[in-house]
Amino acid sequence: MSHEARLAERNIELPGPFPPHDPLDAVVVHGGTARTSGSLPRTPDGVLVAEGILGREITTVDGAEAASLAALNAVSLLRAHLGTLDAIDRILTMTVFVACTHDFREQPAVADGASRVLREIFGDAGRHTRSAIGVAALPRGAPVEVEITAALRPSE
Amino acid sequence: MSHEARLAERNIELPGPFPPHDPLDAVVVHGGTARTSGSLPRTPDGVLVAEGILGREITTVDGAEAASLAALNAVSLLRAHLGTLDAIDRILTMTVFVACTHDFREQPAVADGASRVLREIFGDAGRHTRSAIGVAALPRGAPVEVEITAALRPSE
Amino acid sequence: MSHEARLAERNIELPGPFPPHDPLDAVVVHGGTARTSGSLPRTPDGVLVAEGILGREITTVDGAEAASLAALNAVSLLRAHLGTLDAIDRILTMTVFVACTHDFREQPAVADGASRVLREIFGDAGRHTRSAIGVAALPRGAPVEVEITAALRPSE
Repeated sequence: MSHEARLAERNIELPGPFPPHDPLDAVVVHGGTARTSGSLPRTPDGVLVAEGILGREITTVDGAEAASLAALNAVSLLRAHLGTLDAIDRILTMTVFVACTHDFREQPAVADGASRVLREIFGDAGRHTRSAIGVAALPRGAPVEVEITAALRPSE
Repeated sequence: MSHEARLAERNIELPGPFPPHDPLDAVVVHGGTARTSGSLPRTPDGVLVAEGILGREITTVDGAEAASLAALNAVSLLRAHLGTLDAIDRILTMTVFVACTHDFREQPAVADGASRVLREIFGDAGRHTRSAIGVAALPRGAPVEVEITAALRPSE
Repeated sequence: MSHEARLAERNIELPGPFPPHDPLDAVVVHGGTARTSGSLPRTPDGVLVAEGILGREITTVDGAEAASLAALNAVSLLRAHLGTLDAIDRILTMTVFVACTHDFREQPAVADGASRVLREIFGDAGRHTRSAIGVAALPRGAPVEVEITAALRPSE
């Protein structure tokens, strides 16, 4: 099944796309790969689904939900830039930054929210290498930020 | 106008280059891209222009100034390695790490200092994807650290 | 001398490999490069060699030791995926995330533990660009996390 067919069948709504401000690009394509700018967990209205820090005012469950939304935003940028998700051969890597306290240890469980989204949309082609990093703070108080690099189909 | 011509016309002074210590490389070239090591905001004298944390002792305005200087240092590494900035086809991506408190929210405004430098030197070829990440601390107390990946001209 | 011969001669023991959980990949290969997922400082028993934050309960010396172990874990992932370290042409880049307080300044000394390992195993081919980033916290309380990108030999 194609990525677009899977998206439609599962009724997955992609928010946005919400591209970054000038002179930033949402996506760059080079050498057969596409890489997104850092994406925040924006709802279809464009606002952050949550603000704050894991281990303080954001729970791991809500953080994982925010991470899945941030991944959907990154996928939305890829789709807008490429025209179709079917231009993607496979996901290569994702970095998930998690804003958290010094004693928070569940960055992987938060990042899993984003990883599950990639698997759901891209199937086996959604497997990826990942680093889950607990940082001090993210733009506008976002609890998570996600960047994705994908390999493109040769015909693209 | 070539990148070198723009640099000269605008009287932009590149500090350094200040390469990292052994066994680190300032720049690696592979697959048509060049990537820098993380660059700190060093003045032409080689010292950090500021030390500290955004949201505590560094203001957003001073942080953006430091980010622009860190970007100039990264561009200086690229120029030293490639011989000329005209070997660069376009900037692909920049990651801007901002040392900050847990409640600082203006990482994009800080990172914009670095993004403006790339646009100023490279024109439209200076557009890029970016992630702005608020971290706990950076080497030697630097408020920002920048790494840049650029695409090279095919003839290079 | 080949990388495998150097590993044997120096009696360097690679822990693991400890691959990440599904749907994550330990390593992705694309465009002549191999990139690892973020690797933690696991002992051959699979447990973290230390837990905590630099500048609080982890010293710089112990942090550098943990960084060297994290690098060995990343190299172990590459070897398991590629079959042999001799498939690697050279190391391209390493990012070293160091969990630390806001006032810790010695991220480079910690990261040097990881850089020395790459030099020891790969010789001149172990030189690399690097960013050393001080973050709030890492998975499971790990003091360091390392990700490596390597260029592959053309025949591979």
